[in-house]
Amino acid sequence: MTATGSLVLVPNTLDLGADEVDIQAVLPLGVLQRAARIHHWAAEDARSTRAFLKRVAAVVPLQSPLQSLDIRELPKPRKGSREAVPAAEWQSLLAPALQGHELGLISEAGLPAVADPGSALVLAAQAAKLPIEVLAGPSSLMLALAGSGLNGQNFAFVGYLPQDAAPRAARLKELEALSQIFIETPYRNAAMLSAALATLSAATHLTVACGLTLPGGWVLTHRVSQWQQAERPGLPDRWPAVFALLAA
Amino acid sequence: MTATGSLVLVPNTLDLGADEVDIQAVLPLGVLQRAARIHHWAAEDARSTRAFLKRVAAVVPLQSPLQSLDIRELPKPRKGSREAVPAAEWQSLLAPALQGHELGLISEAGLPAVADPGSALVLAAQAAKLPIEVLAGPSSLMLALAGSGLNGQNFAFVGYLPQDAAPRAARLKELEALSQIFIETPYRNAAMLSAALATLSAATHLTVACGLTLPGGWVLTHRVSQWQQAERPGLPDRWPAVFALLAA
Repeated sequence: MTATGSLVLVPNTLDLGADEVDIQAVLPLGVLQRAARIHHWAAEDARSTRAFLKRVAAVVPLQSPLQSLDIRELPKPRKGSREAVPAAEWQSLLAPALQGHELGLISEAGLPAVADPGSALVLAAQAAKLPIEVLAGPSSLMLALAGSGLNGQNFAFVGYLPQDAAPRAARLKELEALSQIFIETPYRNAAMLSAALATLSAATHLTVACGLTLPGGWVLTHRVSQWQQAERPGLPDRWPAVFALLAA
Repeated sequence: MTATGSLVLVPNTLDLGADEVDIQAVLPLGVLQRAARIHHWAAEDARSTRAFLKRVAAVVPLQSPLQSLDIRELPKPRKGSREAVPAAEWQSLLAPALQGHELGLISEAGLPAVADPGSALVLAAQAAKLPIEVLAGPSSLMLALAGSGLNGQNFAFVGYLPQDAAPRAARLKELEALSQIFIETPYRNAAMLSAALATLSAATHLTVACGLTLPGGWVLTHRVSQWQQAERPGLPDRWPAVFALLAA
């Protein structure tokens, strides 16, 4: 082959396709223009990718009709390590890029491959020496951290915490030692806030962020003792919440 | 007071004002529109903030003339903890928001308060119960992580490493245990890459990212053994590099 393909990491909005935000409020015009010309896609979810491209098309006409685009889904992760997906599956997904085309990688919200599927495909592209282009877009983690007032010079993102009460409490106590960020699935947001308030020291700063970049989104930092006294904000059960904490 | 002011976190481009990138390629139009109407600013650097607002004005006319804007600089951090800045300085900076205005917070590049000054002002705003709005924009850390192919489900950002060779090598070995991200100042980029290659295990994945979102920007992941054999990419001495590593 002669042409050089590439893997293009395309950011999505943070409203999970609910169309609650103007796409031009959260994604740069240049990103929409790039997305509008990509024909081959590797996606966390094909349906939400088509919804995304419809929103793009309302601003910048797509180069090929939506129905004609080649959108393939990332293999669903087996329980446990991403290594469990056979390497051949990543090679097959990369085929358009290896054949000289641009291949877009997109997740359901925010940046692909950060707190979202896709990093194994990026690593396969790195191994294949494909050029990788990362387009500018919002990361819910970083927006939450910026708005928290916690220490942005040193932090750890630790993904999801255990679901069961005892190991979850133990993990919360471990995390209290550093500026730490974690996320929760929407329907467990309220349970996580209760567990955190029951577990953490009174003086620890606890941040909760919900729906940043969306109408009504907010980010609040209080000490645990203040959270316990304050009226709890209504935690939406539609948006994943981002939690951050920093021991006093 | 009756009006409710707010603190608005405004993202900047990643080219440190060098005008090497179209501002519309990296910042959403909605963010430019918001920035164009903010009169009061708390800035890492006043000069670069005026340069940013000039670039904004080329897309969206500013509501007040640039010369008339109220731009004040964040107190320079004393060596050591951010606590060393007297609380009265943060209150003084927050005054416009406490009086009912929008106060913009901006750093020289990327998101304010993440790997950049500003988090103490945000925490003061949280304590004053000011609404905080975080506008969508690029974080060099997250773009590097997304493009690395390393583990985006669990990671730590550990800021700058020690400058002296022996403690730097010791810290690099410590970091090898997790997916870790750190940054370096431009003129030490090459020395850091050499130190990492001399210190880390051959099988460890090492990512270097430079100038993402800028023309010629790149992100490369190799195992340490491959870096040692490969021709080293020219590490720019103008852009800070982002490094990430993951033990095999």
